[in-house]
Order: sequence, then C-alpha cells, then structure tokens
Amino acid sequence: LVSRDLTIKFKPSGRTVKVKGGVSLISVLETLGLTVDMPCGGKGRCGKCTVLFEQGAPPPTSTEKDRLSEIDLSKGYRLSCQTVLDSDAVILIPNSHDSSYVLTRGVARQIPLDPTITKRRAIIPKPSIEDQRSDLDRVLATFQVKRNVSLGLPMIRRLSQAVRDSNYDITGVFAGETPIAFEAGDTTGSCFGVAVDIGTTTLAAYLIDLRTGEQVSVAASTNPQTRYGDDVISRISYTTRDSAALERLRDVLVDEIQKLITVLADDVNITLEQIYEVCLVGNTCMTHLLLGVNPESLAQSPYVPVMCQSLYVNASEIGLELNESALAYVLPCIAGYVGADTVGVLLATGLYESDRPILAVDIGTNGEIVLGYKERILACSTAAGPAFEGAHIKHGMRAALGAIDSVRLEGDTVRFTTVGGGKAVGLCGSGLLDAIVCLIQAGIIDASGRIVAPSEVPAEFTSLARKIREAEKGNEFILASPDDSPADRVIELTQRDVREVQLAKGAIAAGIQTLMRKMNIGSGDLEAVVLAGAFGNYVRKESAIAVGMIPRVPLDRIRPVGNAAGEGARLALISKDMREHAERLAQSVQYVELTIDSEFQERFAEALLFDV
Amino acid sequence: LVSRDLTIKFKPSGRTVKVKGGVSLISVLETLGLTVDMPCGGKGRCGKCTVLFEQGAPPPTSTEKDRLSEIDLSKGYRLSCQTVLDSDAVILIPNSHDSSYVLTRGVARQIPLDPTITKRRAIIPKPSIEDQRSDLDRVLATFQVKRNVSLGLPMIRRLSQAVRDSNYDITGVFAGETPIAFEAGDTTGSCFGVAVDIGTTTLAAYLIDLRTGEQVSVAASTNPQTRYGDDVISRISYTTRDSAALERLRDVLVDEIQKLITVLADDVNITLEQIYEVCLVGNTCMTHLLLGVNPESLAQSPYVPVMCQSLYVNASEIGLELNESALAYVLPCIAGYVGADTVGVLLATGLYESDRPILAVDIGTNGEIVLGYKERILACSTAAGPAFEGAHIKHGMRAALGAIDSVRLEGDTVRFTTVGGGKAVGLCGSGLLDAIVCLIQAGIIDASGRIVAPSEVPAEFTSLARKIREAEKGNEFILASPDDSPADRVIELTQRDVREVQLAKGAIAAGIQTLMRKMNIGSGDLEAVVLAGAFGNYVRKESAIAVGMIPRVPLDRIRPVGNAAGEGARLALISKDMREHAERLAQSVQYVELTIDSEFQERFAEALLFDV
Repeated sequence: LVSRDLTIKFKPSGRTVKVKGGVSLISVLETLGLTVDMPCGGKGRCGKCTVLFEQGAPPPTSTEKDRLSEIDLSKGYRLSCQTVLDSDAVILIPNSHDSSYVLTRGVARQIPLDPTITKRRAIIPKPSIEDQRSDLDRVLATFQVKRNVSLGLPMIRRLSQAVRDSNYDITGVFAGETPIAFEAGDTTGSCFGVAVDIGTTTLAAYLIDLRTGEQVSVAASTNPQTRYGDDVISRISYTTRDSAALERLRDVLVDEIQKLITVLADDVNITLEQIYEVCLVGNTCMTHLLLGVNPESLAQSPYVPVMCQSLYVNASEIGLELNESALAYVLPCIAGYVGADTVGVLLATGLYESDRPILAVDIGTNGEIVLGYKERILACSTAAGPAFEGAHIKHGMRAALGAIDSVRLEGDTVRFTTVGGGKAVGLCGSGLLDAIVCLIQAGIIDASGRIVAPSEVPAEFTSLARKIREAEKGNEFILASPDDSPADRVIELTQRDVREVQLAKGAIAAGIQTLMRKMNIGSGDLEAVVLAGAFGNYVRKESAIAVGMIPRVPLDRIRPVGNAAGEGARLALISKDMREHAERLAQSVQYVELTIDSEFQERFAEALLFDV
Repeated sequence: LVSRDLTIKFKPSGRTVKVKGGVSLISVLETLGLTVDMPCGGKGRCGKCTVLFEQGAPPPTSTEKDRLSEIDLSKGYRLSCQTVLDSDAVILIPNSHDSSYVLTRGVARQIPLDPTITKRRAIIPKPSIEDQRSDLDRVLATFQVKRNVSLGLPMIRRLSQAVRDSNYDITGVFAGETPIAFEAGDTTGSCFGVAVDIGTTTLAAYLIDLRTGEQVSVAASTNPQTRYGDDVISRISYTTRDSAALERLRDVLVDEIQKLITVLADDVNITLEQIYEVCLVGNTCMTHLLLGVNPESLAQSPYVPVMCQSLYVNASEIGLELNESALAYVLPCIAGYVGADTVGVLLATGLYESDRPILAVDIGTNGEIVLGYKERILACSTAAGPAFEGAHIKHGMRAALGAIDSVRLEGDTVRFTTVGGGKAVGLCGSGLLDAIVCLIQAGIIDASGRIVAPSEVPAEFTSLARKIREAEKGNEFILASPDDSPADRVIELTQRDVREVQLAKGAIAAGIQTLMRKMNIGSGDLEAVVLAGAFGNYVRKESAIAVGMIPRVPLDRIRPVGNAAGEGARLALISKDMREHAERLAQSVQYVELTIDSEFQERFAEALLFDV
C-alpha cells in the first residue's frame, strides 16, 4: 500500500500543502497551526470541528453520518476529527483562527518600503602580510561601517568562517547602520521578518518578505495563556499565585509564538535562520507578560504599567529562536489599558495624518477607542467585556460554523443566517447585536433593555409574543429551536444576555462620546469610523448604529479594517519611518482615564438605554 | 573535640582568613585560589609546595622530617600538603601565583576617578490616578535619563519590585548615562568592579571598589587552558581537533575567571550581585578564546586576527555570573600578536603621554615590545620562547621556593641565592640570566654562546674549569651540587639551555633595535626602559644589560612595573578617559611585522651573540 502525495488547499487562507495519503485531517490542521474548536476531544460528538470540502470530500464515516444531516454531508461537510485524507481536496475551514480570513478583508496601507533589516553583498580584500588588519576591520571597512557601532558576539563568532567559506564573498545583514550578521556568499535573495499580534485570546503571526514588504504566509492560534485565565485581570491574578506563575505565562506564550513562526517558515520552505527580525504588538498586559515583566500594578488602582517604552532586544533574549542575531522590536504602549496594539491600529489606519477627525474602535474584551487627526489624538479604554466575543452570553460563541451571524425581521418573522449555512448551534457577536436590534424594533425589548411580557408586545408582532417565555431571572426570547427553524437546539436570548450587551455597548458609546466631547466635535465632523478586530469586521453597521454603540454617521464612512493591530506590526517591520511614528504616537497620544471622568459616568448611565 | 576558629594571614598578599582548626593548609589554599606547585599530587615527595610559617608553625610531620632539613624545619618551613592548621599563623607562600606579590612591587598610576559604572539614589514620585505614567517613565524622569537610551530587559523585569519594595526610594546603577539596574533602597555604599588579566599561563583578577578606585582584593590561578597546550600556538592547534574544542577552551577559562571572582567577593564579604562590571585584558589569542571566537587564522600566515576591536557586552554573554545587568569590557588589541594586554601596559605606563621615548618590554612566552612617546608609538612581538619562565631549560622552574634566583662571581667562586633561602632545587629566569653573565665573565661561555672545554678556561678561573663536564650535546656547567653547595641535586646549565637563552634574548634585543632604528633613536634618547611581567620584576638589571637583551642605559632608568597589563585593566575600569585612550591607542599604535623585516633578520643573527 503505497501512499501517494496529495495536494490539499485550505480556504479562506489559500494555503496549499502536500501531504501523504492516509493522514487524518486534524493532524494536518494541527501541523499547520490552524486550530479548530474541539470540545469533545476528537470523538466526533460536538460537531464543532466541522469543515466544508469544496472539492474531494471523502466518503462519510459512520460517526459523521450520525452527527451530520444527509444534506450537509451531500454538500461536503465533514468532521475534521474523523476525516482521513485520500485524494486532492479544497477545504473551507470556517471555524479557523486563521486570521488571514480577517486580514484579507482589511485594508493594507501602501507605504514606501524601508525596513530596518537590509542586506548587502561585498567582496572583502584578502589578508596578506602587508594587510594584517583583522577580518572584522577589513569587513567593516568594505561595508563602510562606522567603527564605533556596537557589535554582537554571535556575529563575530561566525565571521571568520563566513569569510573563509566563501572565499571573501559575503553578505552583510544590517539593522539600520549596524551589522548584525555576515553570511558566506550572496544571500541577498532571502530576507524575512515576522509581525506578531498578541491578542488576549488569539495570536496571529505574519511572515513578511523584507525585500518586497509583502506578506507571504500567515498563521494563527489560540493564546495558550487562556488556560490560565480568559481576560487580562484573571491572568494578572494568576501571576500572583506562585513565584513561577509569571514565567509560566511567558513561557507558554513564547513557545506558541515560536511554533507559529516555525509553521510560517515551513510553509514557504525557508529556515528560521532566514528570519532576522520580529515586530510584536499586544495590549499592555500582553507585552508585559511577553517580556516577563510583572503586570501586577495594572490590576490595582492607579493601574500603572511598569513600562510603556518600546523595546529593542535580541530575539533570543525574549526566548525566540530565529537567526542567531535576529532582533525583536516590541512596539510602545500608550497607557496601562491602551497598548501597542492600539499603536498598531494608529499606524494601520494612518489616523494621525488625517486632516479631519477619525474615530477608531477596537472591540475585544476591552474596547480601545481612539479619536483624532493630525493635530491631536485622544485615547481611552473601556471594560466592554467579552460579550461580543461570545463569552458571558448563554449561547454565545465565536463566528464559527453554525453560529447565527445575522438576524433580521421579515414582517412578523425573525430570520437568521448561520456561518456555513447549516443548522444554528449558537450566537456570535454580530448575530447577537442584530437579534437585539430586531427585538427592539418589534417592541419586545424596551428602552430600558427589559424583555417585555407577551402581553406587552405590540399587536403587529403578536406572533413573536409566543416566543417569549418566563425564566427565573426575567424573560427570554426563543431565537431558534429545532421545532420551527434549522437549529440543533433551542437558542434563547436571555435577559441577562441583553444586560451584558447593554453594559458593553454602553461603555463603548460613553467612551466615544466622552472623547468627542473633549475634542468638542459632533458625529458630522467625523471623516470615518474605523472598526478594528474580528467583531468590527463581522458586525452589521446598521445594527451597531441602531443600538447606539457608535455615532450615527453615513454607512459609507464606517470602515471595517480587520486585524489593524497586526497590520501595524507589519508596517513597523517594513518601515523605519513607521517605527518613528509609533514612538512619537506613544508619547503624543493623550490618554483619557475614564474611571475618574465624571462626564463618562453620566454618559455611561444614559448609554445603557436603547434609543427606541 | 570542638574545633575553634583560627586566624591565618598569608604573605605576601596580606590576606587574612578565618578557618576552623583541624583543616589542612592545602585545602585552605585551594579555597582561596592560591595555587602552589604540587607535581607529586600531595604525597609530600616533591617538596614544591613548601611554605614558610613566620608564626604559628605546627609540629612537623614525619613526612616533613624526611623531606625537609632540620634547619629548614626550625625556621618554619612546612609542606602545605602535609600541614594541618591548629593555631593562628602567619604563612609566607613564596611559590604562590598570587600576583599581588608582583603588583605590590609595581607602580600604580594615579589618575582621576571617573568609572563607567556609577550609582545615584533618588526618591521616585508615587503613581496616582492623576499620574499614571509607567514606573519606568517616572524613574527615568527622576534620574533625568534621556528617553532614547537602550534599556536592558533584566533591569525592567526587576524595576517594579525594586520600586515597591523600597517605598519608591531607589538607587540607579548607570553605565555612563545608561541605567543598567535599579535597586531598592540606598545601595550607593557598595559598588564594585573586577579587572582581569588573562595570561597564557596565569590568570589574575583584581577586585576594585569603584567608589574609590582602590584594589580591595586580588586572586590568581593558573590558566586552566594550559592543560590543552602550553603556548598560544599549541592551543590554537588544539581548537582544530574537534568541533567542541574551541568551546571547551572557552568554558574552562570562563569557569576559572568565575571562580577567581567568587574568591574575591568572598574575601571581602560581598555578593556577586554587587559587581557591576568586569574589564578584561589578554593577548589577542586569549581574547579570542575568551569570546569563543576561532583564533585559527592567527596561526597561519598572514597571521590575522578575527577582531582587534574592543567589545562591550553583558557579562552574562561571555558566561560570567555577576550582577544580572553587569557589563564586560574587553580592551582592544593592536594586532595578532600585540594584544589587549599590551594596551594595558601602555595605559599603566602612561608611555603615550611621555615627551621622550620610553621602551616597554613585556617578556613572557612572547615578548611584546613597545617603543614610543606622545607623538608616535611602535609595537612588535617576538617569539622569545618560554625560557625565562623556566620552560625548555633543563632545571628551569618558576621563581618559587628553592629556585636559584641570583648568581654572582666572587673571585673564582660562583655563589647563588635561592627563593626562601633554602636548598637549591632549580633555576628561575633571573638566576638563569645571572648564571650566563657570570660564565661569560669567567670566560666559560664564549661570544658565540659555546660552553668552552676546561682547557680553554682563563687561568684565573681554573677552579671553575672543574665544574665543566662533557655531555652528549656540548659541555655543561655544574652550577650547584649537594657535594659543595646547598642543593638538593646536581643543577647543571647545559649548552642547550644557553642556546635557548640566546634565542630569547636575541629575539628581544633584535626587536628592540629594529623599533629604535625605525624611530631613529639611540639608547641615550630613552627616557626609561620599562620591564613588565613577572620576569621583568625579578631580573637583575645589570644582567639584562650584560647579555645585551636591553639597551645599555643608566640603571635608574630601568623600571620594573609588575603586572602592568592587569594594572591597565584596573585603570580602564575606573576611568572612562582611560578607555578612550585604549581605543585610540589600539588604532594609532603602529604595528611592525618582524617576520618580513629584513633589518630584524640581520640584527637577530647578530643579537644571538654575547657581547664579550
């Protein structure tokens, strides 16, 4: 039984790999760093690892027949934990963290290519009894390097061999004006860097060809620190547990970043040796944890970080194994809760160059809000909570296969769509917001956010009143049930769910209003409203306006920009100018502390209400 | 049996230690890093570990009674391998590598104290909800540090705790303008650095109080690389043996330096944490080996080093465990065979500031020669060979107990003295040179260096003719024998010994003459002749002139300066100005390659002869 090579293409990333026939799909996904949810542990029970074979679906297994409908099976849906690959295939992974899905829908800024890392090749004069200068002297003179630059030991250790192996034909690798490595022969054809976005929940890494500035591969995975706490505060609290906890959080993070980078390198057949720099962004707590700096003070009033400065160190110092001389640049943070990821958003949006004010909102567990233009930039952070990421919501989930991602009112009927088009299994952020907007329109949720009793529902929507039922803590609305809609189970929107959304949208809205008030502008003055991050990409603009989360501006001024933080890291990797902007922005952006802002408190109370 | 604390003082270093009664002297010496020769492995047979109890000699053991004469025992001589300490004592260790013996006889230059490492204490403003600057921002602002300095990760990792443990009263440790550490509370009372001289044979380390510039402790030991080769060339050849050989040479060296530094710290009751910088000198091969840089090219024409530049790195990068943020500065080299140790000699002698030419000669396995003054400095290296260190000489030994260290002619009798005054066991460099001078004077060695036949000896020295005997390879002269002089054995000076000295002195003399000729000066123009290193300290000036090794200048212009290389490292440690001089000198000193200098070849042939 000779297994033959198969060609498997993954969507939406477009990555193509060669595998041996007979391997399991889940092992291929793991190797590639493409993670899928698998709460049942690969037993074929939960269905969360469902993927869609657009081409080359293998015959379904008996487990798959039990779990998936005949229609879904005929469309090509399979469970990745059960599937064994036996022919070429094109596979859509809707539930992947592969963030190219997000980024390909974002905007990439065009800027002049001027990376910190460059390569130059030169022929070095050979030593002779008349020219007894050291190898280093001859090399530095040939490359016209100033003598007082600070030189690294790994470079010097390898210099002699590089020069002699190549008969004095070598390539210098430079970080700005400083040589960081000398390589035998002409290696100018290969020069890579990696941009990394360290999200509280998701890690994304982008392999960038530094000769072109292009992204050549992308990989993503779950931040392994999530097993020690879902959000920043719970992780900080974990660090106080024992003396090794901080190091443990650092180690799992660095290991995972190393894995992602290894996947990137394998993907385009380069070695880690060919990667000379990594640029990293993350919120302030994540950059502290990455560097092994204790973030404890972030969790206690007055919430100060240990450091906001950018850091320029050897990649090996933060534990990454790339080229021996590779550098790591961690972008600067603005404040304890406005981090390097927000600096990345600023770079990616070019907000700081705009003539008119732009509002940028990055909604995750925290909602970072930036408002500004070339003259002045304000920033704040609101504890939005993870409602839009599916947490704290009864049937909440990520925008994965089976998630209700949009809801609309057709006459007196509630209709929804799901990711992948199959049966509904839960509710993701955009669906959640849509659902609330519909129920407000139908008079089922009132201005205070209360789910009304069936008797209070306006006459034209009485058919929906049937779907309201009483529960212990207020009423709930049955959004989907196997009885009358394509759903695996009964999916309710609870009173508590509505409260969670009210708190989140109220905090964001009040934060935005506070910044606009401080800048003394109205929504008409906004050049654009930029929505960063996964939720910002999926949310229906109308719904975000309808619940009062973002200012009422023409829809064409609302721009989803995908993973703008990661894009900012890429820009810093390929442009020295962008790094200078980052440094300047971290200093000049004015941080507004909302917890002591009386205006924010007032507006927050108002913003909890729905504008019906 | 309760052992009580004893106070043991060692001479010549003056170090005093507390030990428990009942411990062996040899174990105390080992703990202190004071090495003594012990070829017999501690069995009491060779007598080379003999020390002199000036006070508190214990009763001799039976082994000591067998080995040492009754007179020596009564004077207080004991074998350190046999002696158990049972009372307070003052012990002279004539055979110690403890180089304070050398240095205390050298000259310490007085220069203004301006070390790279300084400490400052400050009270940091506490964070508040109105001052949410990061810890680092508040600290840097208080210490008025420029924001664009490059900051180290270990410092940042410890910052938060230092600030909070001390209630915002901290001490900053600075390297120039750059902070390298912040410590809780006021630690300005303690700030140390270490100067290290890496000799091919001997390592010497000096603990310096950076607040005063004073040397507070000294330790020395044998370079453990000697087990892989006696000289530079044999060690380079060892590095080519296997791929791990280079690392092995580096590791044993770094481990030994670490041990010496630990001894220094223990000696004055400080921790390694309190040591913030180490300055290192050594010849070019030693600095390569220290840094793990392959020195192979030094051994092949055209003898170029990989690097001559100074290096400024974290001490941890070269493998030393001091303060986590401690720096290491390796002084620059001038050429492949004129190293950082010679730069150290230049700093220590201040030759580069002299109005008139000074000749500095550092005689070890290689003889480095520097000639110059403030306008111009020339340097060269001669393969003098290790004759003056006792190697390649039949009865050669270091200047240790029992070594014949001076010889003179009284009428027709040869008289000698030994180190420690006891029986002669061998011949050290100064005794060797004296002996040759005497035999030249007595007509027993002729101008060509030949030991003449008894019949050729002039009439007035016929009594000495009896001591000439024929051997396989030319005649030899019996310098001492148990029959007629206080000697343990017959100690001959062989024809081959004379040839070794001729080669060594010839190379040095020709090197000196070549430099003087290039500078176009005569011996009358010399302000001083400076003799560095152990041999330079012990040699009789008259003899060095008599054999023609150094120019004929008034004796008061000949100055032994001890371990000038190590003193140069100390100066670089306590003065930024000295480092700048070192950098400039490494660039400006003009290296003269003797192997292609036809004048040198001619003069060498002449200089082999004795000027009788």
